[in-house]
Amino acid sequence: MATTRVHLPGNAAASDPANDRSYDIVCGGGILPSIGGLVRAAGGRRAVVVSDSAVAATHAAQVLAALATAGIDAFLLEVPSGESSKSIDAAGRLWKEFARQAVDRGTHVVAVGGGVVGDLAGFVAATFARGLSVWQVPTTLVAQVDSAIGGKTGINLESGKNLVGVFWQPRGVVADIETLATLPSREFISGLAEVVKYGVILDPAFFGWLEEHAGAVLARESAALLHAVERSAAIKADVVGRDERETSGLRAALNYGHTFAHAYETAAGYGTLLHGEAVAIGMARAARLAERLGRLPHDAVARQDALLRRLQLPVMPPAGLLDAAALIEIMGRDKKTLGGKLRFVLPSRIGRVELVDGVPSDVVRGVLQQA
Amino acid sequence: MATTRVHLPGNAAASDPANDRSYDIVCGGGILPSIGGLVRAAGGRRAVVVSDSAVAATHAAQVLAALATAGIDAFLLEVPSGESSKSIDAAGRLWKEFARQAVDRGTHVVAVGGGVVGDLAGFVAATFARGLSVWQVPTTLVAQVDSAIGGKTGINLESGKNLVGVFWQPRGVVADIETLATLPSREFISGLAEVVKYGVILDPAFFGWLEEHAGAVLARESAALLHAVERSAAIKADVVGRDERETSGLRAALNYGHTFAHAYETAAGYGTLLHGEAVAIGMARAARLAERLGRLPHDAVARQDALLRRLQLPVMPPAGLLDAAALIEIMGRDKKTLGGKLRFVLPSRIGRVELVDGVPSDVVRGVLQQA
Repeated sequence: MATTRVHLPGNAAASDPANDRSYDIVCGGGILPSIGGLVRAAGGRRAVVVSDSAVAATHAAQVLAALATAGIDAFLLEVPSGESSKSIDAAGRLWKEFARQAVDRGTHVVAVGGGVVGDLAGFVAATFARGLSVWQVPTTLVAQVDSAIGGKTGINLESGKNLVGVFWQPRGVVADIETLATLPSREFISGLAEVVKYGVILDPAFFGWLEEHAGAVLARESAALLHAVERSAAIKADVVGRDERETSGLRAALNYGHTFAHAYETAAGYGTLLHGEAVAIGMARAARLAERLGRLPHDAVARQDALLRRLQLPVMPPAGLLDAAALIEIMGRDKKTLGGKLRFVLPSRIGRVELVDGVPSDVVRGVLQQA
Repeated sequence: MATTRVHLPGNAAASDPANDRSYDIVCGGGILPSIGGLVRAAGGRRAVVVSDSAVAATHAAQVLAALATAGIDAFLLEVPSGESSKSIDAAGRLWKEFARQAVDRGTHVVAVGGGVVGDLAGFVAATFARGLSVWQVPTTLVAQVDSAIGGKTGINLESGKNLVGVFWQPRGVVADIETLATLPSREFISGLAEVVKYGVILDPAFFGWLEEHAGAVLARESAALLHAVERSAAIKADVVGRDERETSGLRAALNYGHTFAHAYETAAGYGTLLHGEAVAIGMARAARLAERLGRLPHDAVARQDALLRRLQLPVMPPAGLLDAAALIEIMGRDKKTLGGKLRFVLPSRIGRVELVDGVPSDVVRGVLQQA
């Protein structure tokens, strides 16, 4: 078990003693029940566990039992599994149910599930009664290494993912790698794309470690898996602590591959590609774009491709997603765009990325059309 | 024209140069057009003006023209006038329209109207693309002296007002008292309740000034009106700057009269009582509660009653709103309650209030039943 701290400045009045918004990410095996003591120590009197139909009967039930053991009155709200729960309708149902259950500022929200549950429950917690304490208990790989850390919450509109949302940091994160044992293979592998991303953007040694231990990680061997999750969480925590709201450009590095990925996800229709699959394709495309712009040697492109492939991740978009004009139009609507200009996070070597503005659209088009 | 600054600590990473969230409240006569230069100076490239059917053709049109003159591409989104626009549906329509219009982080939101427009537009700005810059241009008295200042945004659920919302500070506030000239009498008078409140909670000299100038204020004489708005805005700005998120107890003072008021508004059905009318009744009830608890001399109760009456505000609830059990049940659902316990802001003299917990419910019942 290891604990990583996300260091954040306070945001309330300087006279407020509870000014520190920093929080711990606890990673380990079999640590799900620790949530009871954590919520109690943080002063939670009641808890509402938000989970989805995939894990409500298993992991969420274990969390409810742990909260009860800690003497906390807790109840479960379940949403359907899948991206469609990141909707205005689903948020509306939770808001109304919170009101019906007389949820108040002494009630803590505990999100148990993958990225969908974490993003939705985080958004609802942030916006109910102008903000409730929320705990993230991620039970998928992509949530443990990425979405549960850093306070991005949100829901989708038909015209784009995460268009509605706020920054709202959790009180803490409990990542139990035992919950990954039962994850469907495609979903587990999808989460590895974000793990590879951390190596490419900030940590060449971790990238090298992944090249060496790809087999063990893929086999979900405990020691390897725990190291992959801990190291990823530590990198994300460090970046978030230094650029919480994506203002200095540092946090933007985390979007490596994501401008392409969001376009592929949107063009394919939500749910056709898993997020991590789209990110893997997006990183492969971004590396090629960097190479075409003379910013990255071909060797690095090949090395990233090779690691993604060893981890059984795609590096090419599915057939039918080569319409460059449509993809560029979607990119222009991305909330990270400014004044309609395309902006990309591009690697200059394994372990380093830069924010690049004003990339000529014909070069982007060329990369998108590459079959 | 006078400018009051709301001093707030930064909330982004310490390394962020744009860390200061402090902002100015500009009060004056005929200053609506200044919004153009303000948005431009703050780096706004585009603007979406959110307004309601009551002022879209007048004040909002003037704001749109001023933005155009300043070289800012601006467009109008209009919502129906009235409390029913503080709904999930109205927020959903604005979110979708923002997406359709490709609103991005370089787009500033300008809320032109009363409290409904300010709360709704503020909430939508706070939650679109994880937060857009928003300017408040209040055109009602209650919005100029209260709701436009301090960053409380939100929408209603059927079971309670403002149950969904976030704290999101504006980039600036422009309060033009000339917009108050055409305000319907009942609405103008309703706003005076919050003005009286500032005197009772924090400023005995201002309370005395109001006693002397009640006639001039009621006649909307420019000098008196400007002083009333400026002084109210300055008090609110000071409180918000010292307790932004209602954590130290200071900001709670602003809720004087409001626990009663929300109960009366809810029991009467939204829109039957204007908010300020409910606040006036709530202050009168709170003063009586304080007197019954031996916390406030009868003289102060009478003095507050007299000023409210001179300003043509009610001090007694309408017939039919004397069911104490129903009102207490509604108070228990208020988001300011903690663990179901009733908590009141009660005056100890004109110019000073205290947060009082654990008030015996039979005493509250007695006050509520007083006809």
